Order: sequence, then C-alpha cells, then structure tokens
Amino acid sequence: MKSYKGKNILITGGLGFIGSNLASALVKLGAHVTLVDSLIPQYGGNPFNIADIRECVSVNVCDVRDSFALAYLLQNQDYLFNLAGQTSHLDSMVDPRTDLEINAAAQLSILEACRKVNPEIKIVFASTRQLYGKPDYLPVDEKHPIRPVDVNGINKLAGEWYHLLYNNVYGIQACALRLTNTYGPGMRVKDARQTFLGIWVRLLIEGKPIKVFGDGLQLRDFNYVDDCVRALLLAGASEQANGKVYNLGSKEVIGLKDLAKMMIELGYGGAFELIPFPPERKAIDIGDYYSDFSLITAELGWKPEIGLGEGLANTLAYYTEHHQHYWDANA
Amino acid sequence: MKSYKGKNILITGGLGFIGSNLASALVKLGAHVTLVDSLIPQYGGNPFNIADIRECVSVNVCDVRDSFALAYLLQNQDYLFNLAGQTSHLDSMVDPRTDLEINAAAQLSILEACRKVNPEIKIVFASTRQLYGKPDYLPVDEKHPIRPVDVNGINKLAGEWYHLLYNNVYGIQACALRLTNTYGPGMRVKDARQTFLGIWVRLLIEGKPIKVFGDGLQLRDFNYVDDCVRALLLAGASEQANGKVYNLGSKEVIGLKDLAKMMIELGYGGAFELIPFPPERKAIDIGDYYSDFSLITAELGWKPEIGLGEGLANTLAYYTEHHQHYWDANA
Repeated sequence: MKSYKGKNILITGGLGFIGSNLASALVKLGAHVTLVDSLIPQYGGNPFNIADIRECVSVNVCDVRDSFALAYLLQNQDYLFNLAGQTSHLDSMVDPRTDLEINAAAQLSILEACRKVNPEIKIVFASTRQLYGKPDYLPVDEKHPIRPVDVNGINKLAGEWYHLLYNNVYGIQACALRLTNTYGPGMRVKDARQTFLGIWVRLLIEGKPIKVFGDGLQLRDFNYVDDCVRALLLAGASEQANGKVYNLGSKEVIGLKDLAKMMIELGYGGAFELIPFPPERKAIDIGDYYSDFSLITAELGWKPEIGLGEGLANTLAYYTEHHQHYWDANA
Repeated sequence: MKSYKGKNILITGGLGFIGSNLASALVKLGAHVTLVDSLIPQYGGNPFNIADIRECVSVNVCDVRDSFALAYLLQNQDYLFNLAGQTSHLDSMVDPRTDLEINAAAQLSILEACRKVNPEIKIVFASTRQLYGKPDYLPVDEKHPIRPVDVNGINKLAGEWYHLLYNNVYGIQACALRLTNTYGPGMRVKDARQTFLGIWVRLLIEGKPIKVFGDGLQLRDFNYVDDCVRALLLAGASEQANGKVYNLGSKEVIGLKDLAKMMIELGYGGAFELIPFPPERKAIDIGDYYSDFSLITAELGWKPEIGLGEGLANTLAYYTEHHQHYWDANA
C-alpha cells in the first residue's frame, strides 16, 4: 500500500459508493486524489459521500462521456481507478444507448486518451459478475463462460475487454475486478438502481416491509465496501495483475430471504414479504450466484475480512444516522 | 428454401460481398429484396456487385447508424439479414469509435427498432470467428472461450450478443453465424480491409508478388461465398436456430504459403514472397485458426460444398474479367 504515497490518482465515479470509500482510503495513504463524477441524479454520485474528505481531494464534476475533459484530467496521473458506470440492469433495457455510451464508448475514449496523453498510467477497472449471466456451475470462477443476460452486462463486458486489449496491444497497464454485490456506507439507497440492498436498507429504516422476489431462496455473495476497496488497491499496486481479470466474492453465501431476516434481526425493526418476480426482472434474473475468488487470493493475497453481520450493522447504523443525505423522506 | 418465396427481406450491407451474393440467391427464390448499404468507399459495398439483379431488387443507400431510416425500412420485413459491418481489424484500432458505432451501437438501434416496429421479424446476424481470438485448441467450436484480440472483435461480439439477448428477453427471433474467411466474386479486392485474400487476388492479377506475413505456415479455413450464403438461408429458415450461434468453417485447412502457391498454380501467373509481420498486424494476429462446424451440420444440415481449388478458380476468373469495377489500375 506504500505504492500510493505522494502519487496522483484519478477516480471516475469518485463521488459514488465505491469511489468515495476508495478516495478516503487513498487520502489516508497520502495520495493526491482527483475525483471525477457526473452527479447524474439517477446514478451513484452523492457529495455527502466525501463530506469528511472534501478538503483533501480535488473534485471535477463531469461525465466520462466528456472525452476532452477526461483527456485533460488523465494527464500526469499515476493511477486511474475507473469506477464510473451505469449500473442499473433495468435502465439498460429501457435506454440501451445510454448504457452503451457510458459503459462501453466512454471506456474506449478513456483508453484512447491514456494511449495518447499518458501511456504510463496504471488502470484498475471495476467490472461485474453480471457478465457471467446465469451460472453453469457454482462457485463461478474466471473461466466460467461469459453470457450476459442484459444490455448492461454486454456493455460492461465490452468496457472490460477494451481495458485488457489496451494492456495487451499497447502495453497500457490495466486490470479488471469483477465485483459481486458490494454494500456499505455510501451506496445508493434511494432506490434499487445500484443494488437491491440499497432499497432494502431504506425500506427497513422507514419501517416498511422489504420486498423479496420469488421464493427468496436465490443465493448471493456480498462484499463490504472496505473489502472491495482493499482489492482495488491491491490490484492497482500489483504488476502481476496487468492484463488480468479477478473475481471478488465471499464464502459467506446466503439466500435473499435469510439475508432479509438477518437485517431485520439487527434491531432496527422492519419486516419482509415474498412477492412474485416482476416480469421485467424475471427476464434478466440469473438465479443463484456466488464467486470463486481463489485467483485473487492466490495472486494478490486478497480475501474478505468483514463478515456480513458486522458489515450490515455498520451499514444500517450509517444510514440511520445519515439518511437525510440519501433520500428525501417527503418524496 | 421455400420459406423465402414472396417474402419481404432486408439485407444490410446489401451491396457488399456476401450481401450481394445473398441477394442474388433470394431473388432466384422469389423473394422481395431490399438492400441497404452505406457505400462508404473504404467498406465492401460496390454497385457492380448487383449489376445483374439491379432491376429485381430495391436499393436504399443509407448507413446502419441512421436509426430513423432503418426503423422505417424494417417495417413489414419478414427477414433481416444483418450483414453490414466495419470489417477491418486495423481500422478498428486506428478509429475505434467508428468501429463501435457501426458494429455495436448501430446493431443495438436496429434491434430496438425491430422491438418497436416489427417484433415478428427473423434476424440472421453475420458474426465472426475473430471473437475467439488466439485459439486454445483446434478446431475451434462454439464453446471455445471468447477472447477478442482487437477492438473489432470486441464490438462484433457486443453486436452478436445484443441479437441473442433480444431473442432471449424479447422473443425477437435472432441467430448468429460466426463466419470464417469467406471469399469469392464480389469481395473487396482493392486492399486488405475486408479479407487478405482480396489484396492477394488483386496482386496476382496485376502480376505483382503476394506478400505472406511471417513463415506462411499459419493455418486457416475458407468458405466460398455460395456456401456462406446457403448457411445464412438455412439459419434464416430454421426456428431451431433462434437464440443460437453457429460456426461456419471448412475441413480443407491450409497454410497461407500453400494457399498462395495454390492460387499461383491456377494459371493466372504471379508469385509470392515471405515478409516479416508488420508490428501493428503482429499485435493482433491469432496464429493458426480453423473451425469445428459440426453444430450447424447437425442442426441445420449445412456443410461446405465448394472446394478451395474450384472456388479460387471461379474467383480469379471473375476478377480477371471484371477487375475494372473493383480497382482503379491507375491508382
């Protein structure tokens, strides 16, 4: 982690959930951090996410589709943590072109800018387990066939591969982490656009029932944001990671109904109900999913350290205290 | 093949190599054929390709990126053979954004148009073996990992998957054929933008030496265009094909040096020379490649029928007679 001291670091999606937590960690490590965020209201950026480090970072509000701005900002950066993305699966089906522009086209223009103005940069790209689609086997390792079930998955995959291609063809150091469900303070909780866990947290704190789709037996794995941030930092600091893709994941696999119960038992009240899958969600549902993350454990020494109970308790405590910065109770 | 009689058929890339040959076949089958082509000079469209069927087809000159034009033209079509694409691997590295717009974004907008104005249409998409990248094993079947080595491969893959996704999620019947090297009358021979075989044909007819990169031992498989057209027609007519991807290929696998010799021995003169790989080509070269096409044989009854010797002889005879329509000897 000493790699980052005194270094120049750009984070796209820097006011978002993972970007802001990463920024905090990098500020503590002594880095010079610049945050790029579009602050599109439907996306994950929220100025409150960086309230406690606001004086220690540079903020540049712009969209990753703004290729001239990015080409300027990428100069003289030692690292790019490329986290900006359209994350809503449903939105990608309703407005596929916007998803393509952000998750694929903007990635290509960022890489072209790096090639032209800063070929020495190291890039870590936030990819997603979504591109495996409905698993053939569990846990899903990096060799699992790729089979995205929604437009978002296809475009994220293109974005990931542009990174690997620019590493392989042009020697621009880049790697990708395929994130699973990440949760914690700073996530979007207003609605389900970023993660279903977000809206669950909101409903629970509002005293409304959590809605679990189907039979609630679908298995998932979860990473607390601090664990995700550590993986990003390890990948950024590792030359071995260049040109590689690593799954994140957790051995604490849980069904969604049990997850709802666990959240309710943390003492903030609440209830859950099983409801039938809405058809537009069923069409892109992937069934059970959890990752094999042994590759990143072997190569970069990463494994999750924060248990689900502890992570959820931190998260609910955070939103109980700060919810007014994340949703309008009168809306 | 009776499926096509009296049916309305749109072919994108219709004045191109494969599109024009497909149009001829469909005209013979009694279909009403509309051809869309951008006629961008660097691409494959050439009005001479349809000189002999010009009175039997409708031609609409427009770009597949023109989403309004396509949405209009897609109405009332029974079949779409979606062949338009940017095919040059090198061009995709020099101008990746244009490749993305044509091979990915335009495909998405075509599918969106189908969803809105013509959800009953059947689509056959021309994909490419390029998306397998450097093979792990030979022959390459459809289960081989996907690992594009250039921007073109990534964008073609996105385009292919949008088609499968719209089949799976929206029930818009679509399938894809992953073409290997296709050759024959109508291919672009002015340069190597569409296929290296094109420029070989030109050099041979001009009496100049064919340039073979590296040691010339790289293996490839080839399909004569009539075989490729038959595969497209079979896929279009098959309900079983919906949502599927099929490799094309040939059991007549040959090294590039031997291919050059074979062409020279056909009696049109010529010579070849081995030259070192240009670095920009070496970076995206895939080594040996040939397909396992047993899936399409089993499911659709397709296998190639025209041998390489016969196909090359037809091709050289065609360009010897018609070369003035394909390149400017004074250029």
